Amino acid sequence: MRATTIHAPFDLRVEDVPEPVVQLPTDAVVRVLRACVCGSDLWAYRGESARTPGQRIGHEFLGTVEETGSEVGSLRRGDLVVAPFVWSDGSCAYCREGLTTSCTHGGFWGSVGYDGGQGEAVRVPFADATLVKLPKEAASDDRLLAALLTLSDVLGTGHHAALGAGVRPGATVAVVGDGAVGLCAVLAAKRLGAERIIALGRHQVRTDLARRFGATDVVAERGEAAVAAVRELTRGQGAHAVVEAVGTEQSMRTAVHITRDGGAIGFVGVPHGSGTGLDLSVLFDRNIALRGGVAPVRTYIPELLPDILDGTVDPSPVFDLTVDLEDVPAGYRAMDERTALKVLVTNG
Amino acid sequence: MRATTIHAPFDLRVEDVPEPVVQLPTDAVVRVLRACVCGSDLWAYRGESARTPGQRIGHEFLGTVEETGSEVGSLRRGDLVVAPFVWSDGSCAYCREGLTTSCTHGGFWGSVGYDGGQGEAVRVPFADATLVKLPKEAASDDRLLAALLTLSDVLGTGHHAALGAGVRPGATVAVVGDGAVGLCAVLAAKRLGAERIIALGRHQVRTDLARRFGATDVVAERGEAAVAAVRELTRGQGAHAVVEAVGTEQSMRTAVHITRDGGAIGFVGVPHGSGTGLDLSVLFDRNIALRGGVAPVRTYIPELLPDILDGTVDPSPVFDLTVDLEDVPAGYRAMDERTALKVLVTNG
Repeated sequence: MRATTIHAPFDLRVEDVPEPVVQLPTDAVVRVLRACVCGSDLWAYRGESARTPGQRIGHEFLGTVEETGSEVGSLRRGDLVVAPFVWSDGSCAYCREGLTTSCTHGGFWGSVGYDGGQGEAVRVPFADATLVKLPKEAASDDRLLAALLTLSDVLGTGHHAALGAGVRPGATVAVVGDGAVGLCAVLAAKRLGAERIIALGRHQVRTDLARRFGATDVVAERGEAAVAAVRELTRGQGAHAVVEAVGTEQSMRTAVHITRDGGAIGFVGVPHGSGTGLDLSVLFDRNIALRGGVAPVRTYIPELLPDILDGTVDPSPVFDLTVDLEDVPAGYRAMDERTALKVLVTNG
Repeated sequence: MRATTIHAPFDLRVEDVPEPVVQLPTDAVVRVLRACVCGSDLWAYRGESARTPGQRIGHEFLGTVEETGSEVGSLRRGDLVVAPFVWSDGSCAYCREGLTTSCTHGGFWGSVGYDGGQGEAVRVPFADATLVKLPKEAASDDRLLAALLTLSDVLGTGHHAALGAGVRPGATVAVVGDGAVGLCAVLAAKRLGAERIIALGRHQVRTDLARRFGATDVVAERGEAAVAAVRELTRGQGAHAVVEAVGTEQSMRTAVHITRDGGAIGFVGVPHGSGTGLDLSVLFDRNIALRGGVAPVRTYIPELLPDILDGTVDPSPVFDLTVDLEDVPAGYRAMDERTALKVLVTNG
């Protein structure tokens, strides 16, 4: 089959790799229908996160079950399924608590020896626990497929950020970062009943989308000017609930300074220096909590799926460029150069 | 009157200062019956926190109302009262939410221009909101007075740490720090229903007290050995709820590494380098939350007071040295040299 591999920074290739097969009785093989490129894939693309040459890449996909191992009970050939960005056994102490990202047998698509989502097919460990079935009729609805694909990462990650930030009905929320995760955090905050949602971002196409997703205010400034603008919008106090969806020193510093005393920062930007933006004495003096991390999106899919199916939540506009599998490298270039917000990959 | 003043690092004096009087109609003057020395006072004593020469010191006290301003409604001369370590107006948005430490008109005892607790009397701003009445008969019970005095800081701070760490019935809790706050966090965790409480500390007198307060296990090791010991006690996973009651780089690093994935660190040690012990990528990968800060103890007093009065909770053993006001400097020396855990100051 064809699959995307990474050989060196900025050297992505789509090449022939072995067809995946069921190796363990709990495996399934999924033929990928839609995949996408994540902001966090760019860290690998740019060489800021190390990869073994030839390693697969891509951790967001949905598709059709092609083959199942003898112990897979809930899935059949032909089922339409979405995969969260990590697999998990569904039975360990962490999985039972919903923290599937800490599963003792879990792993990340594209790890050495495993398929990635940006390919034609994927061997899925612990298929019963990992995959979530979708209505088959969705397969013929491009918009709905795109919306459902966000369950594999960005929508669940935005939801995790909103929960970490303590978004409640009536809350004032600020979202640092206008990438796909930040935009999904706006959607999630709206869904959780936030009254006011302040989106921080400089790219008007993206902040327009934030408004469409529920943002009531947009702050285009950065750094101290952004802090001043958010404080002016919040009677000098800051927001109860702040989402940090970038992961840099500056974004974390901004998040800390726009959080209201007693509030919380939900952080889901993969930390790349953000720790240095974290002044613990400010958190201490003002009782600001920090909660977040890698999102256990598998746990959130059953809660979020009905809202996508009935149209209450539609994250599909985060995809603003569609490529087919052979053009994945061009998709990365577009995201790296910020000409695309998030790239959808279609297969067949 | 006589009061403790700080002139330079290690230069504390007990000297004559003006008698406090009611200056504003919302003030009261309280004659101090018991005060104490806090671990955080040592930062000023050692010169690690700056002070203006001659500034008062001490932020924990209880005593008798001597005079009230015309607008003070709930207190009368002769009432026995305890003061939390900050005053607060009781009416601002933060106070109404219980975050009295962020009160827009709040302040800290011993600030320039204000009395400190380690003196004969204190002018108390916003007396109705700040002070909490105690049963008068407690004034003749030395043990009970000592226990009630902990409501001014250490018991409420330990409670705040336990809440920040997410202590719930059945939880496994670890407490980093065997000072008075750490010991009070053990008491608070026990009170909140923790099933297992691991106290980390090297001083046997203190860890014995931790056991008396409810600790089920003691870890005397430090650093990596402490992490290994806690992990061994918790099937390799760490504790759901971890209290960081020191504030140094090493203590924070230990706290991070003994927290179970998905757990929380309740941090109440005043940060002195603890930010550098905070590896955000570990918090991210393992979904560890960080919550805490300066404790709004005023809010907690009504909840904790009944348990002290009926003997359910008795923090009085944290005081292991009693001095009178003139000997406060000797009390600081004893705490600085760690020959005393916490010093009680008696007046009259």
